[in-house]
Order: sequence, then C-alpha cells, then structure tokens
Amino acid sequence: MPVLVMKFGGTSVATLDRIARASKRVAREVANGYDVIVIVSAMSGKTNELVGWVEETSPLYDAREYDAVVSSGENVTAGLMALRLQEMDIPARSWQGWQVPVKTTGAHSAARIEDIPRDNITAKFAEGMKVAVVAGFQGVSPEGRITTLGRGGSDTTAVAFAAAFDAERCDIYTDVDGVYTTDPRIENKARKLDKIAFEEMLELASLGAKVLQTRSVELAMRYKVKLRVLSSFAEYDPEAGTLVCDEEEIVEQNAVAGVAYSRDEAKLTLVSVADRPGVAAAIFGPLAEAGVNVDMIVQDISEEGRTDMTFSCPVGQVTRAEKALTAAKEAGQINFHDLVADTNVSKVSIVGIGMRSQAGIAAKMFDVLAREGINIKVITTSEIKISVLIDRKYMELAVQALHDAFELEKAS
Amino acid sequence: MPVLVMKFGGTSVATLDRIARASKRVAREVANGYDVIVIVSAMSGKTNELVGWVEETSPLYDAREYDAVVSSGENVTAGLMALRLQEMDIPARSWQGWQVPVKTTGAHSAARIEDIPRDNITAKFAEGMKVAVVAGFQGVSPEGRITTLGRGGSDTTAVAFAAAFDAERCDIYTDVDGVYTTDPRIENKARKLDKIAFEEMLELASLGAKVLQTRSVELAMRYKVKLRVLSSFAEYDPEAGTLVCDEEEIVEQNAVAGVAYSRDEAKLTLVSVADRPGVAAAIFGPLAEAGVNVDMIVQDISEEGRTDMTFSCPVGQVTRAEKALTAAKEAGQINFHDLVADTNVSKVSIVGIGMRSQAGIAAKMFDVLAREGINIKVITTSEIKISVLIDRKYMELAVQALHDAFELEKAS
Repeated sequence: MPVLVMKFGGTSVATLDRIARASKRVAREVANGYDVIVIVSAMSGKTNELVGWVEETSPLYDAREYDAVVSSGENVTAGLMALRLQEMDIPARSWQGWQVPVKTTGAHSAARIEDIPRDNITAKFAEGMKVAVVAGFQGVSPEGRITTLGRGGSDTTAVAFAAAFDAERCDIYTDVDGVYTTDPRIENKARKLDKIAFEEMLELASLGAKVLQTRSVELAMRYKVKLRVLSSFAEYDPEAGTLVCDEEEIVEQNAVAGVAYSRDEAKLTLVSVADRPGVAAAIFGPLAEAGVNVDMIVQDISEEGRTDMTFSCPVGQVTRAEKALTAAKEAGQINFHDLVADTNVSKVSIVGIGMRSQAGIAAKMFDVLAREGINIKVITTSEIKISVLIDRKYMELAVQALHDAFELEKAS
Repeated sequence: MPVLVMKFGGTSVATLDRIARASKRVAREVANGYDVIVIVSAMSGKTNELVGWVEETSPLYDAREYDAVVSSGENVTAGLMALRLQEMDIPARSWQGWQVPVKTTGAHSAARIEDIPRDNITAKFAEGMKVAVVAGFQGVSPEGRITTLGRGGSDTTAVAFAAAFDAERCDIYTDVDGVYTTDPRIENKARKLDKIAFEEMLELASLGAKVLQTRSVELAMRYKVKLRVLSSFAEYDPEAGTLVCDEEEIVEQNAVAGVAYSRDEAKLTLVSVADRPGVAAAIFGPLAEAGVNVDMIVQDISEEGRTDMTFSCPVGQVTRAEKALTAAKEAGQINFHDLVADTNVSKVSIVGIGMRSQAGIAAKMFDVLAREGINIKVITTSEIKISVLIDRKYMELAVQALHDAFELEKAS
C-alpha cells in the first residue's frame, strides 16, 4: 500500500472535537487506499504551559529534563487520536518517539533526527494496522533519553517519516489554507500559491513566515518529499492547499513568489572597531557562545584602520548580545568605541527563484521603498531573496508596496 | 549508600510551590546520607482530566491507548522535580517507566510489576547522581507498550522500588499525617496510629481506607518493606506518620486497630434460586465476566431445593450486575424468581490482629450496633476483621459507636 503522512498542528487537535474532525480526514485517506502515518502536535497551548513550568522551576534548565517534560503533550494527542480512529473502526495505534524509535542526536531541545527504522511500524501495517499515530516533535537520544526537535519540530517529524517511508506525499494540516504571497493580515490582496519551490519555501520559512519549520523544508528538499500545506478547517478538497515541490514542477513563475517579514528585529552597531584580520571572529564568536542568532551582517568601509560593524538579531536577544560584547571588550578580545542598539527595526524580504534569471529585481525593490520614503538600513541578498532592515513603523507599508509593485495578487 | 524511597502523591506535587516543598524534604534525606529514589504521581487533577478525555473519546477504550495517555501526567512531575532538585545543586534526573525499565505484565490499566532491574539507576548513583525521580503508576509491557498499574498505582511503584533496591524505608508522603483509627471526618476522636501491622493495613486498605493502594501493602508485606505514611504538609519530624510493619514490631496492641467503612455499597438478592451444585459458579461467573466486584456473599438456608443468594458490590456496578444476571437467566444458565437490589447500604468493618487471640470481639460489635438500633444485613469475617452491611443512614453512627466501644481513642 502507498504510504501517506498527515501532520496535524496544535490548533488542529486543540479539542476533542477537533481531534475527531482531523480523524475524519485520516479516515478518508484510509478509504482512498493509503496506509497512513499521522504526526500530531500537542493540543495548542499545552506545550507553552509545560515550557512555562520548566522555566519557572529552573530558569537555566537542564535541557534533558525540559525535553522529558515538554514532550508529554504530544503523547496525549497521539493516544487520543488513535482511540478516536478505533471508534471509527479503523485499526490504529499510537507511537511515542522512543517506541518507533525516532533516533536523534543528543542535542537536547534542538535534536536532529538521524534515523527512523521502518521495521516496527511496517510490521504493524502488515498485520492490518491502517494508521500509525506518532507523537511529533520528539525522539530518543543515543543514551535513551527523550529529545525534542525545537519548536515547530512536528513538521520536521512529519517530513522525516515521509522520507523514511517513501511516502507519496506529506500533508501538513494547519490553521491556514496554504502558503500566501504574504501575510493576509497585512496585505488583504495576498494570494494563496498553488505551488511553491522548496528553495522559496525555505527562504520564506527562515525569513519569518511561520507556516512551516525551516528544518522540515530543508529535509523535504533533500529527500524530495512532496509537501502540501493545507487547512484542517476547510472542506475536503484533494487539490487544496499549497504544494511545496521541485522548481521543475512549477511551470509559470513570477519573478517574486512572496514577501516575508520579521517584525521584532534589532540592529546593533559596534562603532569604530579595529579593522584587522580575525576581528569578525572575535566579535561573532562570543555572540554565538551567548546563543545570539545573528542574522544580517554589514561592515563599513575601513578608514584609518577602523571600521563600524553592524549586525541584526531578534529584539529579545539584544541584552544578551550587549553583555557578551561588553565582556569580550573587557577581556581585551575586541576593541570598539561604542555599541549602539536600534531595537525599532523590522526585516522585509522578497523571495523568488525567478530572480535568478531576471535582472533588476533588487533595483525595483529599492526604488519602491524609496518612493514610499522608507530608508533602508541594512541590505542582504542571496540568489533568490533580498532582505532589508527598515524602521518598524514602515513595515506594513513596505510589505504592501512591494506586494503591489511586483503584482503578487496576480497568478503568473 | 543506603537507599531511601520517597513517594509524593498528587496533592503533594499539585503546584510548582508544592514540588519545591517536596524537593526540600528530598534534599534533607540526601543530607542525611541517603541515595534517594523519589516516586511521583501526576499533579492532582491531571490524571482525572486525562481519563475524562479518554472516556469521552472512546467509551469502551483500548486500554493500551488509555495507558499511553494517562501516564503522561507523571512524566511532567518527574521532570519538574528533577529540575527543582538540580536548582538546589542536588544531582538528580527523571526516569520514565520504560527507561528504568519497570517491567510489567501486559494487563493494561491494571498491570503488575514483574521486575525492576537495578542496573541503570545504580550506575547513575555510582556516577554521583543523588536522586532518581521516577514517574510512578507506569511501566512497560513485554511488547514495549506503556502500561499503568491502576489508580493509586504510584504507591505500588514506590514499594516495588523499595523492594528492588533493598531500601531502608519507603516513605509515602500524602495529604494526611498517617493512618487513623478511623476517618477523622466522621469521628473526631480518631487517633493517629504510630504503628500498624501489614495485615491490618491490608484489610483497612481493601475495606475502603484510601490512604494506601491495597496492592502496595501486599507487596510491602511480602518483601518486608518498612512503609511509612506521613504528611507532606506537616513540619519535618523524623518520627512522624504511621509505620506499617511486621506485627512483631508492635509491642502493645489493642484488639481492634481501626474502624473502616465503605459508603456506597449495594446489596443484591436473587430470590429463590434452584439450590444445586454449581449454582454459585453459574451466578458469579457471569458477574466476574461483566467486571462486577462482588464483595460479601451470603446464602440462605435451603428450603425445598431453593435458596436466596445475596451479595454486595459497589453501587456503581448494580446496573451491570443486573444486566449480567438477567442475561444469564434468559440464557437458561441460572434460574431465580426475582432480583432485588438495595442500593442504600454501607459497609462498616473493624480490623485488628488482636482479634486472633481475643474472643468476644464479634459479639461485642453486634451488641454495640444492636444497642444503637442498627440492623445488620450481611456479615462477613476473616481472622482479623469483621464487616457488616447496614443501612447507609446509620453508617456514621455505627463508626462512632464502634470507635467508642472499643476505646480506640486511647493508645493501648
């Protein structure tokens, strides 16, 4: 039998009614002839509650215990959905990560899946089980302790199972009906995409579009897993949602596929840093150790052996970054005159594989922003995306203007 | 290092504050020189919530999934307490049943512990871990699925660990400060016992005193585990609580140690049953299959080949019992004229190993009840207990009168 992987996020299993509703979708795919592997998240809110308890108990918690605690929510939904399916006369059972086993690295709270042996689940399919309901987000370390994959990790669980079981498709059921050209809450002309290339989705995911965990898109791209994002609340429609696929499968393509944003960014500038080899390492080493996620980096042109170094990171990490840099300065590892933080910036990005073959996209983006009077503070580019840091107050305006200028409301 | 087992029930770990408080008690025992194994229940209310979800999802649930779901509450408290202890600089880690592993039978929801290998936890103690926080109530079946031990099963987990690790003592922390001569809510002269014999505790537990799970007392008796019941809310006192121990360790002993009751009992009478060999089996076989917990059984003197058969069971099981008996009658397996249910009865029992050597205890009990005008409906006795079924409205009066008559408020 062909295998289908279906993943239901927290809002899709938030109540017993919703679990029942999701189970109906599973039943339909069983009727369609699939052996189904369902990956479930915890009921929405549960994981946050557990994380809150852990942080209150131990601010600098042992990640092994964090994982043991926060993984429990998925076990509950997995069991409940198996029960619901059994009530519908569908042979189903739940699987916790260690039972499959989902073998991961020992990097607790941010573990990576290393292997998912098919034996146990395949044997049960052979015995007549139609649905394996697997607790997402969790695995087991080489030491036999429970690991978790980081927030949103159930997406990654789903893609990893699809890859391991050569699934025909991996359907990610969520509270939106697909991937949009941009956030419809900001731009009401935002259009749902029928298809999007892996590379584009990867950029959008890492740029702040929260529809899929970045790691899951990476995995899907690597293992050529057909990934579909669709709503668990809409009526059944086999063509629904957005298919994330190889770019070859996308015939027509706008130069720009979407506009992404990340609201709460900060820009830090080290003023007058001694410009000599190794200085970047001296700066970004301590930041990495302090767990600061440095995103964009810009170095000014050097004058008289000194330069300004600017980087961006999430607003919530500014204090940590300042501490790390001040400590490094006091330890004599780096030398700068001043450290200036601007915590009122946002990042806006345009993404599209069409950029590769089409010139002038960057120029057009800068022109659009200039015409709206929006000052660009930092720019970074890759082959298929351009990101700018701007004042937060212009973020919505920038998203709308770019969506308009690149005519994203129109299918190509 | 000597090993101490400490068990904290649901009310003792109901909040983060209470977990912190329980952790302080653990820390004190570590300071006293013990390697400590802590057994935790779920935060109070959590297991009931999970059971409610399971029952709503699937009234005739698959017990394997029930176990997978309801065992999750203990995992949360185990992790949180390990974190709390780490915050107090005590090397601690959590263990889920399958990690130890706590090997049980495959009788889901009512599994029995078969083996607790010491290797894993002992190795960690040798590495410097001072506290193993184990999720109570759960284990793993020969098939690698999660099992649970039945409600109150964490007591059994605690005693089984104490036996497996030759613990010096097993301290059961709960919301009462020990075992009383009777329920203090009914008789305000009820006195806390300093010691009670295993046999007595076993009778009290099965007769409705909810302080310990019956199975845990059985295990403690079999493996000679010194069991102490004490309050997690009282101030620290090394002599606190009630010690459940061998009767040889109890020097002075009242004839009656305590008065137990079970409020919601029912009495069913099969009127005019054909009295021939095999009839009892024909009656109680179907009841057992229907899951009815038959307690007391009385058969009237036979007249003209027919007799009345009376038995008691919990009120909640009367409908099930009636259905099973009616079905058996319709199937021609048994024959009776009428089935009469009295759902307004309670059971009151006196328990004491002193009864073995002291005559007249039963006569005194019946006399006390007669003087209060309380009619006895059914009587059963064992070597160390006498139980009577009486009208529910007299239950409190019977408990008080018996407590008074046997002078249980006075230590012997």
